[in-house]
Amino acid sequence: MEQRVSLITLGVRDLARATEFYRRLGWVGQETQSTVFFQAGGLAVVLWDRAELAADAGVEDTGASFGGIALAHNVRSAAEVDQLLDAAAAAGATITQPARTTFYGGYAGCFVDTEGHTWEIAHNPGFTLNDDGSLTLPDFDAP
Amino acid sequence: MEQRVSLITLGVRDLARATEFYRRLGWVGQETQSTVFFQAGGLAVVLWDRAELAADAGVEDTGASFGGIALAHNVRSAAEVDQLLDAAAAAGATITQPARTTFYGGYAGCFVDTEGHTWEIAHNPGFTLNDDGSLTLPDFDAP
Repeated sequence: MEQRVSLITLGVRDLARATEFYRRLGWVGQETQSTVFFQAGGLAVVLWDRAELAADAGVEDTGASFGGIALAHNVRSAAEVDQLLDAAAAAGATITQPARTTFYGGYAGCFVDTEGHTWEIAHNPGFTLNDDGSLTLPDFDAP
Repeated sequence: MEQRVSLITLGVRDLARATEFYRRLGWVGQETQSTVFFQAGGLAVVLWDRAELAADAGVEDTGASFGGIALAHNVRSAAEVDQLLDAAAAAGATITQPARTTFYGGYAGCFVDTEGHTWEIAHNPGFTLNDDGSLTLPDFDAP
């Protein structure tokens, strides 16, 4: 199994509401067969009916408030963290963790989107954010 | 907000068990401060204590069996789907959706990892899987 992820599918209770939320954040997607696909770098983020997603995967959706997964979007400065959290709140997100300095010397905050999915917006000077937006982890064992 | 994802953090109840699961799938990561980081193409997949993840994000973890998110790993043939589902089962996953032909002309199946996270292994001839493993969506409006 190659070490990569191809799509991130977010189960949604209201596709129009979720699509509008990401549109407000500036994302441009394509809708087909009641599914919205966003090209996101080398992977795709997909919005699909939560019940259909669960059924397709053969799992039960018991409807917790937290799904055990958080998505992170890293940026190049602390100011961008504040800007994006403000933009998310303006787009309809709930800020669950106001931006603050983190234990690793960065700056980050979290929001939950309209469907309950958790996102962290982070500036982490220890992680390389390449010109193309891809992330490169440091060698944690380096002196 | 740029249209991309930087990290996918999987909240885990047993870090050693989860790390071993991904190791069995062939993933090579780095552990630091009770967190495991996997470089996964242009993003990182992270294993971190589920309770700490929820607390850090300011959300409550009510512990549903399904988190409302599924991760997909696309491959280049139906045979690879079968191989990866077999490998996942051998590594300790629960197959929740046996591989089958999909409505879009592909072939896919799903498993849940040791922490309850849902993965789909899919061969979708309509989606371009580049030589570097990145996915490129088709133009759904093309004739």
